[in-house]
Amino acid sequence: MSRLHGVFLIRETKTKVANPTVVVAPETRRKIPALEGSSDPFSFVTDELQLVEENLIRAIRSREQTLTDIAAHLICGGGKRVRPVVTLLAFLAFGGKRIHDIVDIATAIELIHTATLLHDDIIDRAETRRGKESAYRKFGLKNTLVAGDFLFIKAFEFAGKFDETVVEWTADACALLTEGETLQGYFNRNRNVTLDDYVEIVRRKTASLFQTGAKLGAYLAGANATAVEETHRYGLNMGIAFQMVDDILDIVGHVELLGKPTGMDLRDGNPSLPIILALKAEQTAVCETFQCPQPTEASIGAALDTIKSGAIIQQAKSISRGYAEEALKSIRKFPPSLYRNGLKTLVHLIIDRDF
Amino acid sequence: MSRLHGVFLIRETKTKVANPTVVVAPETRRKIPALEGSSDPFSFVTDELQLVEENLIRAIRSREQTLTDIAAHLICGGGKRVRPVVTLLAFLAFGGKRIHDIVDIATAIELIHTATLLHDDIIDRAETRRGKESAYRKFGLKNTLVAGDFLFIKAFEFAGKFDETVVEWTADACALLTEGETLQGYFNRNRNVTLDDYVEIVRRKTASLFQTGAKLGAYLAGANATAVEETHRYGLNMGIAFQMVDDILDIVGHVELLGKPTGMDLRDGNPSLPIILALKAEQTAVCETFQCPQPTEASIGAALDTIKSGAIIQQAKSISRGYAEEALKSIRKFPPSLYRNGLKTLVHLIIDRDF
Repeated sequence: MSRLHGVFLIRETKTKVANPTVVVAPETRRKIPALEGSSDPFSFVTDELQLVEENLIRAIRSREQTLTDIAAHLICGGGKRVRPVVTLLAFLAFGGKRIHDIVDIATAIELIHTATLLHDDIIDRAETRRGKESAYRKFGLKNTLVAGDFLFIKAFEFAGKFDETVVEWTADACALLTEGETLQGYFNRNRNVTLDDYVEIVRRKTASLFQTGAKLGAYLAGANATAVEETHRYGLNMGIAFQMVDDILDIVGHVELLGKPTGMDLRDGNPSLPIILALKAEQTAVCETFQCPQPTEASIGAALDTIKSGAIIQQAKSISRGYAEEALKSIRKFPPSLYRNGLKTLVHLIIDRDF
Repeated sequence: MSRLHGVFLIRETKTKVANPTVVVAPETRRKIPALEGSSDPFSFVTDELQLVEENLIRAIRSREQTLTDIAAHLICGGGKRVRPVVTLLAFLAFGGKRIHDIVDIATAIELIHTATLLHDDIIDRAETRRGKESAYRKFGLKNTLVAGDFLFIKAFEFAGKFDETVVEWTADACALLTEGETLQGYFNRNRNVTLDDYVEIVRRKTASLFQTGAKLGAYLAGANATAVEETHRYGLNMGIAFQMVDDILDIVGHVELLGKPTGMDLRDGNPSLPIILALKAEQTAVCETFQCPQPTEASIGAALDTIKSGAIIQQAKSISRGYAEEALKSIRKFPPSLYRNGLKTLVHLIIDRDF
């Protein structure tokens, strides 16, 4: 874990800060540690993340070794665990005490995320994922599809233990995810896609799990409705920013850091943020490549160069920073604590990351 | 609904029997209607099935019309609703009162079943389902895959409202389903498959939802542990019998009644009961066709003729009747009632059906 987080942070800062100041969270009247200054947000929840890892390993055990192998291929294959971290930090920021509850929710969120990745790779016929052969390529369509179902089921086993609100929010997040996928499919290679359409896709497809994980954290910590709503807004906006940065990295990132080739969105005809901005700017190379059912590598290369040469990337970065800023605004209303700082640092890390 | 059940029963017997004798169920000490003699088991739960239908229609509403269309294509496309009926009858046989609870569970079971059909059609690249174009053919891989996920999620929204036992059993049933799919994949076109392997596949793949629906019915009615276990055994054995009859109909059924061509298991290399018996009897035409990656229609026709000409179908029917008999044994231990009779008649209907 620590190696992973070190990579994510670029620098290594894993030690939990000893004896932080204690303040009382106004929402829940519980004592929680407070500290000014930023540090690795992953290090604030090292123990909790370890419990999530143990849960994940237990969850993917199956009578059928193939299912376990496929799940492990992805679960143990270098995921950043950003969603669990958001969930755990939101819970701790509002003074949550029943750690095992939030660990189960964080596990469910990561399992759902992994299930969708398996199914996404089938849909996109992806060759690689996280720097290695995709499960779809390695294990075939049938086994990968079933393994995705298996992980969805396991996720619901974790989330289903809680009250109706938790079940409803989790199911809603998953339904949004599927609806985001469908909407994205509708705009595949579709030149008429607008920035509003894009934000709606991303809100459903990527931000749904962030926002639900975050608000479940606050809810299970006993925060009041206003605080839960603010946490939801934090997750929503940071989730949108997260996807926007992903989209930018698909244009300007480095293959070695990304673990996959660049230009995938152009190749697959997915309307990403830079692509939409380039379409709007009527960049011919991008318009043609985006609409072409099977663009050549030369055409993709030319379109990438066109996007990189202009102001598109700066525009995209500026838009993503706007959403990050919205996420930070929500945090300001949280009670000051080490964990609030963690949520804040996380937004900066997400915006500034290289992969 | 009534038309559908009439078809299922061949004859039309839909009216609910008025003023049945009342006996006290020893398990729950509640008064339940009792009646000797068999009648259409679907007619005993007409009102409850109507509520399931309403639930299903509500459940498949999505912000994305495509998801609703795909779900409706299958949900409104002539399913027999055998699993909901088993669940409802088991609940009522043990004097269950909170009808809306069991209606929600029956809905969840049917949604899970439908989700797996959507995913199965992708895996088998099925052309048809229930007499019309399969969702996979009509809506494509991506949308069908996502719609399957959507239905899984909706199912868990229904089941997730209940206690941990309900959630655990439902998730276990789904996990078994996926494990059955994987195991079946392992034995695809694999000549070494045995009758034991087959029963294990069917136990997981088909019987799991029947057994779980049935035992959830008894459990939510407040039946004791022994009664719940017996209901589980009923569902298990009737589920195995159900699949065996499906397998037989794939050889000897009529295209018009089945709504799909015969010989699909030979075409897809799925180890069905008659195929396994034919492999054991070393019927050359069957061995060759079953192992061939892309068998010709002539080869499938010859293999079907070989299976039909010998004693294989009689053997298969005898084995399926053995499981049906086991299911009936469990029923004898239930308190006598109209609903117990319904569960009994259902077994006979399943064994004697033409589609």
